[in-house]
Amino acid sequence: MPFGFSVEAHSQGARAGILTTDHGRIETPVFMPVGTQGAVKGVTARDVWDTGARLILGNAYHLYLRPGVDLIARAGGLHQFVGWDGAMLTDSGGYQVFSLASLMRVGDDGVTFRSHIDGSLHQFTPEAVMEYQARIGADIVMSFDSFGGIPSARRDAERSVDLTTKWAARGLRAVGTRFNRYGYEQVVFGIVQGAEYSDLRTRSATELAAMDFPGYALGGLSVGESKDTTWDLAEATTALLPINRPRYLMGMGTPLDLIDAVARGVDMLDCVLPTRNARNGTVFSRDGKVVLRNAAYANDLVPLDGECGCIACQRHTRAYLRHLFLSNEMLGPMLATSHNLFFYADVMRAARAAIVAGQFDAWRNAFVERFTRGDRESAARAGVET
Amino acid sequence: MPFGFSVEAHSQGARAGILTTDHGRIETPVFMPVGTQGAVKGVTARDVWDTGARLILGNAYHLYLRPGVDLIARAGGLHQFVGWDGAMLTDSGGYQVFSLASLMRVGDDGVTFRSHIDGSLHQFTPEAVMEYQARIGADIVMSFDSFGGIPSARRDAERSVDLTTKWAARGLRAVGTRFNRYGYEQVVFGIVQGAEYSDLRTRSATELAAMDFPGYALGGLSVGESKDTTWDLAEATTALLPINRPRYLMGMGTPLDLIDAVARGVDMLDCVLPTRNARNGTVFSRDGKVVLRNAAYANDLVPLDGECGCIACQRHTRAYLRHLFLSNEMLGPMLATSHNLFFYADVMRAARAAIVAGQFDAWRNAFVERFTRGDRESAARAGVET
Repeated sequence: MPFGFSVEAHSQGARAGILTTDHGRIETPVFMPVGTQGAVKGVTARDVWDTGARLILGNAYHLYLRPGVDLIARAGGLHQFVGWDGAMLTDSGGYQVFSLASLMRVGDDGVTFRSHIDGSLHQFTPEAVMEYQARIGADIVMSFDSFGGIPSARRDAERSVDLTTKWAARGLRAVGTRFNRYGYEQVVFGIVQGAEYSDLRTRSATELAAMDFPGYALGGLSVGESKDTTWDLAEATTALLPINRPRYLMGMGTPLDLIDAVARGVDMLDCVLPTRNARNGTVFSRDGKVVLRNAAYANDLVPLDGECGCIACQRHTRAYLRHLFLSNEMLGPMLATSHNLFFYADVMRAARAAIVAGQFDAWRNAFVERFTRGDRESAARAGVET
Repeated sequence: MPFGFSVEAHSQGARAGILTTDHGRIETPVFMPVGTQGAVKGVTARDVWDTGARLILGNAYHLYLRPGVDLIARAGGLHQFVGWDGAMLTDSGGYQVFSLASLMRVGDDGVTFRSHIDGSLHQFTPEAVMEYQARIGADIVMSFDSFGGIPSARRDAERSVDLTTKWAARGLRAVGTRFNRYGYEQVVFGIVQGAEYSDLRTRSATELAAMDFPGYALGGLSVGESKDTTWDLAEATTALLPINRPRYLMGMGTPLDLIDAVARGVDMLDCVLPTRNARNGTVFSRDGKVVLRNAAYANDLVPLDGECGCIACQRHTRAYLRHLFLSNEMLGPMLATSHNLFFYADVMRAARAAIVAGQFDAWRNAFVERFTRGDRESAARAGVET
C-alpha cells in the first residue's frame, strides 16, 4: 500500500498512529533499531523481527562508502541486500558527513569530504544524495541536511538552516517527495535544523513545512545540550509541523527520553543507545538499568526482566548473562541486544496502548516512577551515590 | 529414556546409530557443536537448535573455573543454566589442564594447576573431577584423562596411559558409570590415550574396555600429527572397542576429517573448527571452502551454498556476508557460525542417509570429489598455487 500516516488517538500531547508502507504497517509511536551499515549490531534479521520491530534504519553515508550504492542496486535494493522483510529508513548521511568524515568544504552545492574508512575524497550534492538514497531503496529517505552541533555560533546556525532549506528544495527538484525505483513507494522526510536557537528552528520548520514533505524530522538534537533545551526546542518545532504528518526525533535516547518525546507528540525515534549499551553489558528493565557485570548479579537466577518476552528473558538468567559477559562470550552482547530492542519496543507498545486508552500520563508516571526507583535501589546496592 | 546406543546400519566400515538420552534422541554419526564456557560462540541456543544439533559440548575445566560448579548446581544443572533443551556432554578438562593451565604437578592423585584466568591454584583429583561433572550435570561426562601430546617420549606416553587407566578406575569407584543427580541419567565415557604409539593405544583401549563404560572416546588425536598417523591410531583403537558402544573422536576436524572418521566407525565428533573458522570469515560449502573476505565474492549475489537450509543461506548472499566481515559487523561471524554448524550437521545427515542406504563409499567419493574440486577452483581463481 502507498505511504501514509494517520493519527488514531491523542492523549495528553502524545499521539498513537499508523504508518503504512509497501513493506508493512507500523504502529506509532515507534522506536527504530539502527542498522547503520546494513546490519543491526549483534542480532540477525529474525532476532530483530522477533522484538516486534517492523521499521529499521540504515545510513546512506555508510552504505554509499561501503559496500557502495551500485552493489545494493544490483541486489534489488536495501531490503533485498540485507534480507529484511519489514520497512526501512535511511538517514541521508548529513549528520555523518559533518560528524564522522573529514570535512573539506561546505558550499551551496553540498559538501566535499574524506571517507572515515580510507581517506578517499567524495562530494555529496543534495541532488546526488537523494539519488543515492533512492537507489539504496529505503521506504523512507531523509532530506540532505546541514548539521552544526550545539552550541553553535548564531551565524553558523543560520547558515546551517539556510543550507538545509536550500538542499531540501534541490533534493525535491531532483527526485520529488515520492518515487518508486524498485516496485514500491519511497518517500522523503524533511529535517529541521537550527541548533539551540528556537527562532531558527521555527524558521527551519516553517520553510520545510511549506515544501509538503510526507514526514518531518527533528535533527541535530541530543548532541550534548541539556534535556530541558532538547525538549524546549522539540516543542517549539512540533507545534509548527502539519499534524497529519509523522514526526521523527533523530538519535534519541534512553527509555525515559522515548517517553518524554512521545509526550511531546513525537511519533518515531531511533538511537544506537539500546544496541551499544547492550554490547557493553548494560540492559534495561522495568525496574531500571541492569549493569550485568556487577557482582550483585553473580547468583541472580532470575530473568533480566520478569515481564519481558524476549529470547534472553524467556530462556536465560541474569547470572548466566553475567557469566557470558565475564567470559567474553559473543552471546552476551547478542542476548543483551535482543533484550534491549525488545524492551524498547515494549515501552512503545505500552505507551501506544496507554494513548489509545486515553491514559498516557498515568501510564507514564507509573513507568517513570518504577524505573527510576529501580535505578536508585540498584545504585544504593552497588554503594554508588546517586 | 535411559542412556542407550544402538547401531542401525553398517556400510563399508561406517555405522549409523541412535543415541538415546533423557534429553532426546540423537542420530549418529553426529557432530557436536562446542560450547566450552556454556555458550556456542556466535549463536543463540535457538540458532544451534535450528542447525539440527541436539547434543552440544561444555567443558568441565572452564565451567569449574567460571562460573563455578556451585552456581550451575544451584541453577539446576548445565541445561538449565545455559538454557539448552537438547542433550549435553562435558569434557572432563583433562586436555585443558594439560594444554591451557599452568601445570604445577602431575601425580597418581591427579594434577595441581594454576587457572589460565587468574593464576589461582587448583587441584583436580579423578574423584573430584567426576563429582564436578556429575554436579555440572551433562548427559554424557568424560573420564578424567592424562594427555601428553604428539610426539611424546615413549616413557611419557606410557605414564599417560597408566594414569588415564588409574584415574578412570578411581572415577568409577567414586561415581560409577551411570548416575542421576537432577532427575535424568548421566553416563561416563572412557578416553583412550597413548600418544603416537599404537601398542599403547591398544593397551589403553583394552584396559578401558574392561571397565565397561557406556561409551568410549579417542583422545589426544589431531594435535599436530599427520592425518595418516591419526587414522592409523584411530583404526587400531576402534577395532578393540565394544561394537555396541558409541565411539567419540575428540577434537576433529574439517568436513573431510568428519567423513574420514565416519568411514572408520566413529559415531561422534566435536571440534571448534567450524565455529572458529566462521568467526574468521571462512565457511564451508559443498563446493569447498569460501573465504568471505576475498574480493572474488564482492559482487556475488548468491548464497554461500545453494543447497543449504541455514538462516544465512536462506536469506543472505555472499556479497552481503563479505560486506559484514569487511565492516566488522558482529552479524558476519554470527551468520557464518550458523552456516558452518548447519553445514556440518548436513554432512553428517547425508553420511547417515548414505550408510542407511548401504552406499556410504559412493556418497563419500562424490562429496570429497566435489568439495576438493571446488577448493582447487577457488584457489586457482584467487591466483594461489595449490
